[in-house]
Amino acid sequence: MASRISRRGLLLGGAAAGVGAAGGALGHRWATADPPPVAEEAVLNGERTVPFHGPHQAGVETPPQSHASFAAFDLGREVDADGVRRLMRLLSDDAARLTRGEPALADTEPELATVPARLTVTFGFGRGLVERVDPGAVPEWLRPLPEFDHDDLDPDRGEADLLIQVCADDPVTVSHAVRMLGKDARAFTVPRWTQTGFRRAHGSESDGTTMRNLMGQVDGTVNPRPGTADFDDLVWRDTDQGWLTGGTGLVLRRIVTHLDTWDELDRPAREAVIGRRVADGAPLTGGGEHDEVDLTATDASGLTVVPAFAHVRRARTDDPGERIFRRGYNYDLRDHGTPEAGLLFAAFQADPVRQFVPIQRRLDELDLLNEWVTTVGSAVFAVPPGCEEGDYVGRTLLEP
Amino acid sequence: MASRISRRGLLLGGAAAGVGAAGGALGHRWATADPPPVAEEAVLNGERTVPFHGPHQAGVETPPQSHASFAAFDLGREVDADGVRRLMRLLSDDAARLTRGEPALADTEPELATVPARLTVTFGFGRGLVERVDPGAVPEWLRPLPEFDHDDLDPDRGEADLLIQVCADDPVTVSHAVRMLGKDARAFTVPRWTQTGFRRAHGSESDGTTMRNLMGQVDGTVNPRPGTADFDDLVWRDTDQGWLTGGTGLVLRRIVTHLDTWDELDRPAREAVIGRRVADGAPLTGGGEHDEVDLTATDASGLTVVPAFAHVRRARTDDPGERIFRRGYNYDLRDHGTPEAGLLFAAFQADPVRQFVPIQRRLDELDLLNEWVTTVGSAVFAVPPGCEEGDYVGRTLLEP
Ligand code: HEM
Ligand code: HEM
Repeated sequence: MASRISRRGLLLGGAAAGVGAAGGALGHRWATADPPPVAEEAVLNGERTVPFHGPHQAGVETPPQSHASFAAFDLGREVDADGVRRLMRLLSDDAARLTRGEPALADTEPELATVPARLTVTFGFGRGLVERVDPGAVPEWLRPLPEFDHDDLDPDRGEADLLIQVCADDPVTVSHAVRMLGKDARAFTVPRWTQTGFRRAHGSESDGTTMRNLMGQVDGTVNPRPGTADFDDLVWRDTDQGWLTGGTGLVLRRIVTHLDTWDELDRPAREAVIGRRVADGAPLTGGGEHDEVDLTATDASGLTVVPAFAHVRRARTDDPGERIFRRGYNYDLRDHGTPEAGLLFAAFQADPVRQFVPIQRRLDELDLLNEWVTTVGSAVFAVPPGCEEGDYVGRTLLEP
Repeated sequence: MASRISRRGLLLGGAAAGVGAAGGALGHRWATADPPPVAEEAVLNGERTVPFHGPHQAGVETPPQSHASFAAFDLGREVDADGVRRLMRLLSDDAARLTRGEPALADTEPELATVPARLTVTFGFGRGLVERVDPGAVPEWLRPLPEFDHDDLDPDRGEADLLIQVCADDPVTVSHAVRMLGKDARAFTVPRWTQTGFRRAHGSESDGTTMRNLMGQVDGTVNPRPGTADFDDLVWRDTDQGWLTGGTGLVLRRIVTHLDTWDELDRPAREAVIGRRVADGAPLTGGGEHDEVDLTATDASGLTVVPAFAHVRRARTDDPGERIFRRGYNYDLRDHGTPEAGLLFAAFQADPVRQFVPIQRRLDELDLLNEWVTTVGSAVFAVPPGCEEGDYVGRTLLEP
């Protein structure tokens, strides 16, 4: 690392003395003369933390925060299993601190670390990383998804060795955490891509409101519920998965939504595409958002109320094991080149090949929605189990 | 506009009937079976609105929201004063509705409009627009800033005919408003650039906490206070400004911050560069954040405590009229090409040439900070006065 430039080097014409450096983790808020009133303090969302340590990594069951960044890296050519171990020790330590609202060990902007805002850091290993460490430990499903006809994949948004998913309710918190983690990963990796997304801000809607995507749809209604046995089985499958026991699989798809042509559809047409109402996400067969859709219901003319190729009909199956947990984010990039909006479709499931692929295959085959969406990025990661305090994510693979 | 695709055209194999379209502006939250508890409702930040109408446009005095988008457009070649009038009527109507939490008139995703989250829409006119309407009405200062040695300007982030500044505490709200306003501007304009920034989320820190930029500094301490006579004089100057009476001037500078080299500085060096402490933003001469800096104070060796070329020393002057109102946003773009972080430096002042330029000139000449920042975009806009309900922004220019 370049040697640090000292204050002395800057004093072209003046000098300061006797000023306490007052470094460390103290946030600006705590250092001001007037502490905020207690009542307000009690509700500050910025102070809320999500534990980094535990049997599972955070950021999967965690109620989705409003901002997410998915940062992918490839290992440097010379990095061996020992290097990966050092990398994951370092990153786990950073993550443990940052998620507590404390600066990372060599944090260069420690004051930006004082607002955890439910920060979670979730690590995923690509096939390349696991192969580098132990070729025999690569799960069968840890490989690129099969090709799909409607995909138009950009290799620059593709498979990578390491994924760091950073989520928080504050965009500054996400920006700072991504930067610190990325800096500590530098000696071991080369950055591949970063993808940044958002949902409604914390406090914009009542907790538990299903998100809407930028097409305007209520998106995420039918989804395994964290904390249920159903979820555990579909996502964690805590049984004999070797080093991945307590872990899961992540499929990240970058899906462009063609909003301009979507906007040419009238409301009933949009509802037919999905099979649900735009206004409240309720099934076209009636009831509220969380009521069951009746796929067999027919109208007066004998046709099914939910079209045969509606997205929700094609996305579901009778096989209860063939389900995924969707935890996606909107994106809307306008600052460089042609604007692009869409969904960072993040799906967690114990076995992507068994759970994600058949759904995607059906959608690829026939889904009214295909006309307005194109998948341009795709990557699969193994999400290791969580770790206890003092331990690091990946130990089950790296020091089995 | 292309003809809308109807539901009928989609029914390849099914049909729906008897389903209430349930259109309109009703948000999803209101339509669910379980209304949120009253206590929570009372504090939902998403419901808070900032009036669009009034003597001044909103988005200047408004306490900065957490997300901002600055979208710039050029007028189509054939658009005359009458076209600009129609454009501004349309956009003002959109803005009035959206800021109330209602869909725009032809809103294609009306449900995304139901969370105002303190949305403000602020219009700025570039020299090109005012010239097109009435060359005699161009304020003397409405022109590109003089060249500065340290600038490295990208014309693709430069002057434009129309600016729409969109701010809200919710990123979905900003995304939707920018999209709707941009769609309604399409028939009259070509998009030039969009720049998107953020601050801490609402609820992350106590209200009124000064923001930090991504260099980690408390940024915005010494700033005219909205609602004071001082502010009115510096920013609005409600006297004889012709069509701009009740308006102001906006200078938007895109300033890259070179964080990697900045991070090589130790803490005292960083504090010398600015003249304030990193921990709490207090002057190097002591006290709290909002205490006066003593520029004459010397240390034991007789040198000034605040270095001669420290940013705060160079940025200020004895001339009380030579001040600006800073309302900037961080940006951190990592999704395309080389990552770029910095500040969308937005300064409001009645006369940029008289107020902004001399400060910038001093900084350009000598400012320790110059080593770590580069201005890559620059544009100046006249921000017309606000309007009453039913009226539109720009009428004072367009129908004087
Ligand atoms: C931009 C692309 C997509 C959009 C806009 C979208 C939108 C939606 C919407 C609005 C629903 C209904 C509400 C809900 O239950 O969440 C839904 C359901 C669902 N989607 Fe998607 N979706 C997209 C891509 C995908 C992909 C790639 C998959 C998986 C391969 C998928 C799997 C599902 C599943 C499993 C359901 C629940 C179906 C049910 O059992 O009712 N979706 N999607
Ligand atoms: C990335 C670029 C910049 C950074 C990081 C930055 C940062 C800061 C910081 C940390 C302060 C001290 C706290 C405060 O009062 O806000 C400050 C003060 C100030 N800055 Fe900047 N600044 C930047 C660019 C500019 C520019 C372009 C201008 C105007 C041309 C400007 C004008 C001022 C003024 C007027 C003050 C208050 C000085 C005083 O009277 O104490 N700054 N800036």
